[in-house]
Amino acid sequence: MTAQTDGFDRNSSPQHKKPGAEHAQAALPDLYRHVRARSVELIDGLSDADATVQSMPDASPAKWHLAHTSWFFEIMVLHRFVADYAPFDPRFDYLFNSYYDSVGERHPRPARGLLSRPTLDEVLTYRGHVDAAMAQLLRGAIPPQALALIELGCHHEQQHQELLLTDILHLFAANPLRPAYRAAAAPLPASDAAPLRFASIDGGMVEIGADGTGFSFDAEGPRHTTFIEPFDLATRLVTNREWQDFIEDGGYEDPRLWLSDGWAMARAQNWRAPLYWEQREGQMLVMTLEGMQLLQPDAPVSHVSYYEADAFASWSGMRLPSEFEWELAAGTVKLDQMFGAVWQWTRSAFAPYPRFRASSEAVGEYNGKFMSGQYVLRGSSLATPEGHSRPSYRNFFPPHARWQFTGLRLTRDGQGPI
Amino acid sequence: MTAQTDGFDRNSSPQHKKPGAEHAQAALPDLYRHVRARSVELIDGLSDADATVQSMPDASPAKWHLAHTSWFFEIMVLHRFVADYAPFDPRFDYLFNSYYDSVGERHPRPARGLLSRPTLDEVLTYRGHVDAAMAQLLRGAIPPQALALIELGCHHEQQHQELLLTDILHLFAANPLRPAYRAAAAPLPASDAAPLRFASIDGGMVEIGADGTGFSFDAEGPRHTTFIEPFDLATRLVTNREWQDFIEDGGYEDPRLWLSDGWAMARAQNWRAPLYWEQREGQMLVMTLEGMQLLQPDAPVSHVSYYEADAFASWSGMRLPSEFEWELAAGTVKLDQMFGAVWQWTRSAFAPYPRFRASSEAVGEYNGKFMSGQYVLRGSSLATPEGHSRPSYRNFFPPHARWQFTGLRLTRDGQGPI
Amino acid sequence: MTAQTDGFDRNSSPQHKKPGAEHAQAALPDLYRHVRARSVELIDGLSDADATVQSMPDASPAKWHLAHTSWFFEIMVLHRFVADYAPFDPRFDYLFNSYYDSVGERHPRPARGLLSRPTLDEVLTYRGHVDAAMAQLLRGAIPPQALALIELGCHHEQQHQELLLTDILHLFAANPLRPAYRAAAAPLPASDAAPLRFASIDGGMVEIGADGTGFSFDAEGPRHTTFIEPFDLATRLVTNREWQDFIEDGGYEDPRLWLSDGWAMARAQNWRAPLYWEQREGQMLVMTLEGMQLLQPDAPVSHVSYYEADAFASWSGMRLPSEFEWELAAGTVKLDQMFGAVWQWTRSAFAPYPRFRASSEAVGEYNGKFMSGQYVLRGSSLATPEGHSRPSYRNFFPPHARWQFTGLRLTRDGQGPI
Amino acid sequence: MTAQTDGFDRNSSPQHKKPGAEHAQAALPDLYRHVRARSVELIDGLSDADATVQSMPDASPAKWHLAHTSWFFEIMVLHRFVADYAPFDPRFDYLFNSYYDSVGERHPRPARGLLSRPTLDEVLTYRGHVDAAMAQLLRGAIPPQALALIELGCHHEQQHQELLLTDILHLFAANPLRPAYRAAAAPLPASDAAPLRFASIDGGMVEIGADGTGFSFDAEGPRHTTFIEPFDLATRLVTNREWQDFIEDGGYEDPRLWLSDGWAMARAQNWRAPLYWEQREGQMLVMTLEGMQLLQPDAPVSHVSYYEADAFASWSGMRLPSEFEWELAAGTVKLDQMFGAVWQWTRSAFAPYPRFRASSEAVGEYNGKFMSGQYVLRGSSLATPEGHSRPSYRNFFPPHARWQFTGLRLTRDGQGPI
Repeated sequence: MTAQTDGFDRNSSPQHKKPGAEHAQAALPDLYRHVRARSVELIDGLSDADATVQSMPDASPAKWHLAHTSWFFEIMVLHRFVADYAPFDPRFDYLFNSYYDSVGERHPRPARGLLSRPTLDEVLTYRGHVDAAMAQLLRGAIPPQALALIELGCHHEQQHQELLLTDILHLFAANPLRPAYRAAAAPLPASDAAPLRFASIDGGMVEIGADGTGFSFDAEGPRHTTFIEPFDLATRLVTNREWQDFIEDGGYEDPRLWLSDGWAMARAQNWRAPLYWEQREGQMLVMTLEGMQLLQPDAPVSHVSYYEADAFASWSGMRLPSEFEWELAAGTVKLDQMFGAVWQWTRSAFAPYPRFRASSEAVGEYNGKFMSGQYVLRGSSLATPEGHSRPSYRNFFPPHARWQFTGLRLTRDGQGPI
Repeated sequence: MTAQTDGFDRNSSPQHKKPGAEHAQAALPDLYRHVRARSVELIDGLSDADATVQSMPDASPAKWHLAHTSWFFEIMVLHRFVADYAPFDPRFDYLFNSYYDSVGERHPRPARGLLSRPTLDEVLTYRGHVDAAMAQLLRGAIPPQALALIELGCHHEQQHQELLLTDILHLFAANPLRPAYRAAAAPLPASDAAPLRFASIDGGMVEIGADGTGFSFDAEGPRHTTFIEPFDLATRLVTNREWQDFIEDGGYEDPRLWLSDGWAMARAQNWRAPLYWEQREGQMLVMTLEGMQLLQPDAPVSHVSYYEADAFASWSGMRLPSEFEWELAAGTVKLDQMFGAVWQWTRSAFAPYPRFRASSEAVGEYNGKFMSGQYVLRGSSLATPEGHSRPSYRNFFPPHARWQFTGLRLTRDGQGPI
Repeated sequence: MTAQTDGFDRNSSPQHKKPGAEHAQAALPDLYRHVRARSVELIDGLSDADATVQSMPDASPAKWHLAHTSWFFEIMVLHRFVADYAPFDPRFDYLFNSYYDSVGERHPRPARGLLSRPTLDEVLTYRGHVDAAMAQLLRGAIPPQALALIELGCHHEQQHQELLLTDILHLFAANPLRPAYRAAAAPLPASDAAPLRFASIDGGMVEIGADGTGFSFDAEGPRHTTFIEPFDLATRLVTNREWQDFIEDGGYEDPRLWLSDGWAMARAQNWRAPLYWEQREGQMLVMTLEGMQLLQPDAPVSHVSYYEADAFASWSGMRLPSEFEWELAAGTVKLDQMFGAVWQWTRSAFAPYPRFRASSEAVGEYNGKFMSGQYVLRGSSLATPEGHSRPSYRNFFPPHARWQFTGLRLTRDGQGPI
Repeated sequence: MTAQTDGFDRNSSPQHKKPGAEHAQAALPDLYRHVRARSVELIDGLSDADATVQSMPDASPAKWHLAHTSWFFEIMVLHRFVADYAPFDPRFDYLFNSYYDSVGERHPRPARGLLSRPTLDEVLTYRGHVDAAMAQLLRGAIPPQALALIELGCHHEQQHQELLLTDILHLFAANPLRPAYRAAAAPLPASDAAPLRFASIDGGMVEIGADGTGFSFDAEGPRHTTFIEPFDLATRLVTNREWQDFIEDGGYEDPRLWLSDGWAMARAQNWRAPLYWEQREGQMLVMTLEGMQLLQPDAPVSHVSYYEADAFASWSGMRLPSEFEWELAAGTVKLDQMFGAVWQWTRSAFAPYPRFRASSEAVGEYNGKFMSGQYVLRGSSLATPEGHSRPSYRNFFPPHARWQFTGLRLTRDGQGPI
């Protein structure tokens, strides 16, 4: 097995270089095929059992990700735009609905891991059935509404590709055997970290949100104006070494550093380090997609919750950036590790932009209904598919979530221009 | 008993008319005495048992409110600024600490209702002990730092006065006998509601936050600039009649109207109407501080959670205001029911203002550590003490909270100036 | 206050000396008056608040005990045998039903502590109302069925008298102030314990169960024959000193000594000693009705669960007696501390005797429906009212219960006659 | 596939006809091979995923059953009696320990379903490794202690064979697709049920417990004398038709029929019928190992809890037998369906027989520590391996358990001899 097929190589899609052109029907079949093939590549090496088990209610089985992303095309596109579409199995409407209340009942989320049937092979056959129908649709003239939904389905599937990896990691980390997903999946950069420095950024009236030149999710718009005060943003992410300093300085024992909810959670769950860190015989190891590895002090810290990120920032005498500060920096100055290492917690609650309106159709449930109890993360991670992120991208998770590839970038109130 | 002493009359403190002068030492003794006396008036008519029981972990016994507000002065002021202060009972340091991690261990919140001892009489004696020491302190020259803490303690106690009332209501509503707190406590206005109209408000660059001319909590500042788009704000609150329309139209049964967390909560708790509404023999009754009453269709709806308020706004085709929109309107146009009826949910998560820094002292735990998982409410309610609110005031509760006097004011995106 | 009225003196009812005569109508009014007065004596010194709070779902407020025992007479006797009986408050039918499904709905058990109303004074007035009606009934000719129910009601109330004390102790133990119920309530005997010796008891065919010469509960019969093998029974109870040996020998850390459910419970609850033991500054204290006291090494151990008692017996290389062995010994040999110290766990699950049939009336719910998940305790405790126990008496609690006055007596398989 | 290999044919072990000879070393290798082969036959047709998922904490994955039964031989036999035994994987000591505290830490029971690794193939290889070492051991002279442990291990594995089937049924019943385990697994007898009749059985002094002529578990002894009153025992099991009568008569709605804990459980879980019954379009179906089937009215009712069985018996005006009554009948009169249909709940709590002592070795944890909170079931079920039951056999489960093949046989107090 070569590194190319072993890792889930984030640079493997040269055909997907021009996101601005995706809306054109010409590019869509390629995008569709590329994304669909990528999902199947990701489960290479996983057994039917690996792909079936659910390690916690927040995670989903790999098989479920494969099926649900097909369900999305079946329900949102094929049922509506292909007159004589014959569903693969009508019971899948129920089995693989994630959270769309408007399209009917669904299998309960915490019970996704009970589905030893359909088998992984049957799910792959289901994917083939959907792909065949989609291929036929894509060969003809497609209504603009369908085009938009197909494009959305591709980006939706990319989101699930990242979740598939984080969920597999969580499953394997719960197994005392600590199996590796792959020998060379996608290690975090571990070369010497640069000294911690800050870029000073002028605020002012700035434009925020997707600019309409390529695909974006509904929650990335409408583009609008906001006012930002001057701030300084770290030129790189917080490292494992810095997190070890926080631990050694009693960061997990000092309630004054923590948000009240965070302190309660940290005590209830007995948090003492990022998820997946494991002290063994005097060494600090960390569970990764490559199995148990020595902790790399210069790599960005990962698998920390918002609560921990906020406590770390308080301990540092600084704070987390707002999502607008992050987006402004991403668009105007060149900082390291903005994309491709770990998602970066912002202090911004996930909320609608001014004049945001969710669609009245089923896809209106995509983002809008999650706009409470979640914080925005910006950037992307080592597990994010190539081409899936951008400066306006708004990822979101609840503040206690730790199983994603999540870290932080320090910020402080500014004095003036860079 | 006259109406004056029966109700918790919010207009009974003429000496407290000029908030801007409160910082002066001259006014502080009067404020202290007024606030302290008010707390004791509030428990007139409550038995020791009424004042002892805790109806849920989120609520506290009346006795605990009385003791904790004294504890605040003891810990924050007397121990620090009176050299030879003899504490009433050193065990109260532990018993009546609310959430201040930096001052030591505390009795667990859900166990506050187990404290049948000290008795209500002993707690009143404790208050007398603290008041005597405070009176002596207030007669001399007071360091500025102490002045600020005493003023804070008075406003802190006013917050607990409102909580005492909401918590007693919750307790009495849980009793099948549905006892009344008082015969004429503080009914919501129930005259004919005006037709629903909207004031159109220009946005632009606006100044937000306390202006420093009177007392304010730390979270109300720093005053800063933000940019607001034009919006329309309802000239009055949503009424019970309108909420009944929402119910009859299936508002509690349609998941598309709800935030995902809200829908899960509404299903788990079987919400079908605001808290305290009760259908009996074809009539809709509501539990109030005056006992069970016929629902007044024209009164503002109360005891709805953020989730319900948001669903109602969606059903109306509108939205909740941001806290900045509300504050702008409060400072610039004259709308009805901004204060004194019910707290008004905003769509703003409770978050720090730019350049906000919590104090490094114990009072730094006052607001900052609650800046996750909460939404801002603006205005004030019928239970808010006179002089306790202002346009910059930021109340906050988690989105599922229903036992406060909480309602809503509709908002919609604007087209231009008023 | 003298010791006689201060403690809940178990020897204060000389008029109740001849249990065999209780069925006679002549004795019943005296029994009724004595029992009813005793309940009220027990709350002397308790405040309304003390009598209102519920410390856990398994415990009930003192006020509730006072009301429920009156409810029993109202529902079971007055409503049925007094044609024109006017209930004190019809809502009490609901409020003070304990678990009688056949007489209607009831207030949920875990919410008994929310009832700050009716007040303690109102409950005492309720008792007076019931007592007046009962006095009138008792003056006339009473149908035999009513006689039996009144007698049952008296013994029922005596059971609640003991529960009232165990529940108050649990409440006060949960209060960091550890208040004393009374200065001299009912200390456990603490004179030097005799050496551990055993009486050898012949088994054989023996008669078990109430012999019909006095009052007994339904579950004490029918009297029947069973076969018992020879066994040896300890002549006294296990002491605190012996329990300390068990602790020091690692009894709470060795899973091999424990029943599986017991070990799980001990780990989940972090049991390290009997309930109410508290190490303070090198001394072992114990919470009692007299407040915190030094542990008396020679006193019988109390407040241990069945699981702990069984583990202790295993550690001792012995076992707990069956309830039949205990009853046989109580009727044939003279051993110490059979009554009046602590209830003694037996290895017998609470089950119906051969040919047992619960009554088809409401009182049929008295015992029969609890015949699963409980173990039988024999004897009586320091808190058991005088005259309330006997050799055939079957108390029962779930195996994890610790808040009763519960201890143990060791047993071993026998070799032959005494 | 023929019926012989398709079903888990309970009559397929002719070599196992003489249980009395099992202790002889000569018969043991045959028994070992037969039992071990049977386990592997049982998973024929199951996928790795089917064998990995855990449907509830009480159930275990099929793969886990296969591995744990091998672990038993490895830990109890090979490590102790084969000097140079090389364990297959030392980590399995931890992974596949069920509940033996004395042999070390173990993987938590509710997390057994997270083990997608080792794979099913690896577990089968593990079995082969153990079988090879056992084969070598069995070829030589075996110490008597080892002989007894090997025989125990065989019967232990037979218990897990039945659990494997009940756990697979539970898993498949939780899958909306309701897959069948096999086309012809082991249907319950469904010919016309005989009229309900009773055999009258004399009681008297009877011998209870294993007689030592063949293998038995420790809890089946010591054999001892007990006294039994005359009773009548139904000549057949309660049928589905009779259970439907119970349902239609409101059996699940009448609290007076139920034990208190049973009623609470039935309400909390919303029990309305036996587990696996499902009303669909006017027909009553039932989930079985053969998939969804029409309910057979004449087949014995199965998958009822002790609570339901007890309520049914109360509704019938009868009761459940004691385990001694059942054993006496099994040894003296010829009744139908004593073995091979469903396990029969008795009213006997699982408790030690007189003079019972658990072994001080690891196998001492086999039964003794479960002697609380469980009821005895007698007989055997359609899923019990051939030769695995006998009149003295004591199966046990908690009173709420429903996923085993459990039913009941009615009993009533007797008048005299048959």
